Amino acid sequence: MAPVRNARVLMNEYPTGYPEPGKTTVYDDSQTIDIDNVPLNGGFLLKTLVLSIDPYLRGRMRPTGGYTPGFPLGKPLLSYGVGVVLRSETDKAKAGDHLYGQFTHEEYSVRAVLGDLAHIEDKHGLPWSVYTGAAGMPGQTAYVGWKEFAKPKKDDVVFVTTGAGPVGSFVIQLAKADGLKVIASAGSDEKVAFMKEIGADVAFNYKTTSISEVLAKEGPIDIYWDHVGGETLEAALDAADIGARFIECGMISGYNTGGAPVRNLMQVIGKDITIRGFIVSRSFGKYLKEFYDTVPEKLAKGEIKYREEVTHGLDKVGDVILGVQKGTNKAKAVIHVADG
Amino acid sequence: MAPVRNARVLMNEYPTGYPEPGKTTVYDDSQTIDIDNVPLNGGFLLKTLVLSIDPYLRGRMRPTGGYTPGFPLGKPLLSYGVGVVLRSETDKAKAGDHLYGQFTHEEYSVRAVLGDLAHIEDKHGLPWSVYTGAAGMPGQTAYVGWKEFAKPKKDDVVFVTTGAGPVGSFVIQLAKADGLKVIASAGSDEKVAFMKEIGADVAFNYKTTSISEVLAKEGPIDIYWDHVGGETLEAALDAADIGARFIECGMISGYNTGGAPVRNLMQVIGKDITIRGFIVSRSFGKYLKEFYDTVPEKLAKGEIKYREEVTHGLDKVGDVILGVQKGTNKAKAVIHVADG
Repeated sequence: MAPVRNARVLMNEYPTGYPEPGKTTVYDDSQTIDIDNVPLNGGFLLKTLVLSIDPYLRGRMRPTGGYTPGFPLGKPLLSYGVGVVLRSETDKAKAGDHLYGQFTHEEYSVRAVLGDLAHIEDKHGLPWSVYTGAAGMPGQTAYVGWKEFAKPKKDDVVFVTTGAGPVGSFVIQLAKADGLKVIASAGSDEKVAFMKEIGADVAFNYKTTSISEVLAKEGPIDIYWDHVGGETLEAALDAADIGARFIECGMISGYNTGGAPVRNLMQVIGKDITIRGFIVSRSFGKYLKEFYDTVPEKLAKGEIKYREEVTHGLDKVGDVILGVQKGTNKAKAVIHVADG
Repeated sequence: MAPVRNARVLMNEYPTGYPEPGKTTVYDDSQTIDIDNVPLNGGFLLKTLVLSIDPYLRGRMRPTGGYTPGFPLGKPLLSYGVGVVLRSETDKAKAGDHLYGQFTHEEYSVRAVLGDLAHIEDKHGLPWSVYTGAAGMPGQTAYVGWKEFAKPKKDDVVFVTTGAGPVGSFVIQLAKADGLKVIASAGSDEKVAFMKEIGADVAFNYKTTSISEVLAKEGPIDIYWDHVGGETLEAALDAADIGARFIECGMISGYNTGGAPVRNLMQVIGKDITIRGFIVSRSFGKYLKEFYDTVPEKLAKGEIKYREEVTHGLDKVGDVILGVQKGTNKAKAVIHVADG
């Protein structure tokens, strides 16, 4: 077969504010690849099927990176994804295997080693995209964060931010499964409806409703799941009960502004608050088997609900990244690159 | 005996910035008390010996209080103190008993009930003032905070702020007893010398030396003991190692400014940091016996070192409160009210 297009998305310029499609990142379709003959040198050829676009990517769009290293200029972006092995010279990954992990933003890539890529099997008829969402890193984040750090007690009140997103919506369902009262916020009325559908007792649109007023009425809160930081974290600190647990999963209000200030941290002293930050990879190991044994099946049966917004084509990556930073995406953002 | 003076220090006006002696608080010596005949109504008459002036008092100088209620205007201040019972109509407190706890800023007071006041005995020849410092609330704060939240591991590096104060100096000695490397900061060269004397491996004057530079050279840090908040907390977050524990004991940089902003809280996520705030009274119960059984003796023998700056007279309370807020006090600030 003749060489085919191998389009890529490259890191082009570090943004100071919001990332700009076509400037921060550029779509490049100038390269080709000879799928049948490209040398593998003992490795394997991977075809990208799905790429996950998540809020934390903004942190990598700087020279020093966020909690993961910065993307080098002129090189493809990296994000979680699912792909299928087309050819292989290693028994670590056979043709036809599906792999999940960090993918370069390319239609095809040759990998020397399996590295951190994990084999996934779809036993329940879920789209591969779900393995980057509710059954992937975001779902794992919700799962381990809740199991390790929430320490739920009877009659606790939980406040979940970004409650319609892939992490937040999972957290709402974990909290409801534990019998707690859940307050949840998101940025559109349509997201509010989804949060109610999955069980939130109080769901509100933070763009039209005062967070402080909702928490004053429905709190005090015992558990806070943070994806926002800044003023939202301040409101949660003011509304916290003594002994509250704050689970710090993200702080998007500061990602594009150099960090959003928090002025009332003093509340952690007066209220004996524990703030626990985490990234999923350091804590997930002990839950891995339990997660894959139970979560995909529950997702397939509808016992855990999820939503995703699928955009087709690598050329849309820049727009979707911006949408996720601004919160204009409607659900878990995934890029469909190819079937397979 | 004829009535004698019963001087008091009253809350007069809530400050917006630093408290102003004579305006924020006023000394009032217009009242008298007939020690022999004042009716006790089943309670007891207490003579104030020592009052403790601590940083947290600033939080009570507002209508809503800090993590303790606000001081009512026109009423005496309250702080930890030691006093002796002069007369009593209850067997809960006999004449000659020494009591420790929250004292009104008055030379004499009639108490209806013992309440939270605790009996103290001095078996080791310590001044009563020490029972408001290293053997009182500040020492207890260091003790319970370290035992409950520091989770020291071999080769950990600790950064202690306000390391010459009654809490910080105790923490330095607890950390050294656990074999850790201790970095400590304070606001004068004389305090730096004291921190070295009690074992700090690296001691520096934050007014003349860059905190960030010291931590970059001597860190990363695994445990941070915070009395300062604001920019110092930001520097500690930047210098923290993965899995660091931050013990939030005070945030004086914000007490007189309405709260000092922290802009890099995002570090708690990338570094899996735990921030734990606490006030001593909620956690100390289980350590109370152990503390009083061991600490006063070690203080008397010089096995735990402490320093105090004693100021004589209730009329100096306003000045000493201001000094503690500005850090111009040289050591644990106590007001000597009377011998006894």
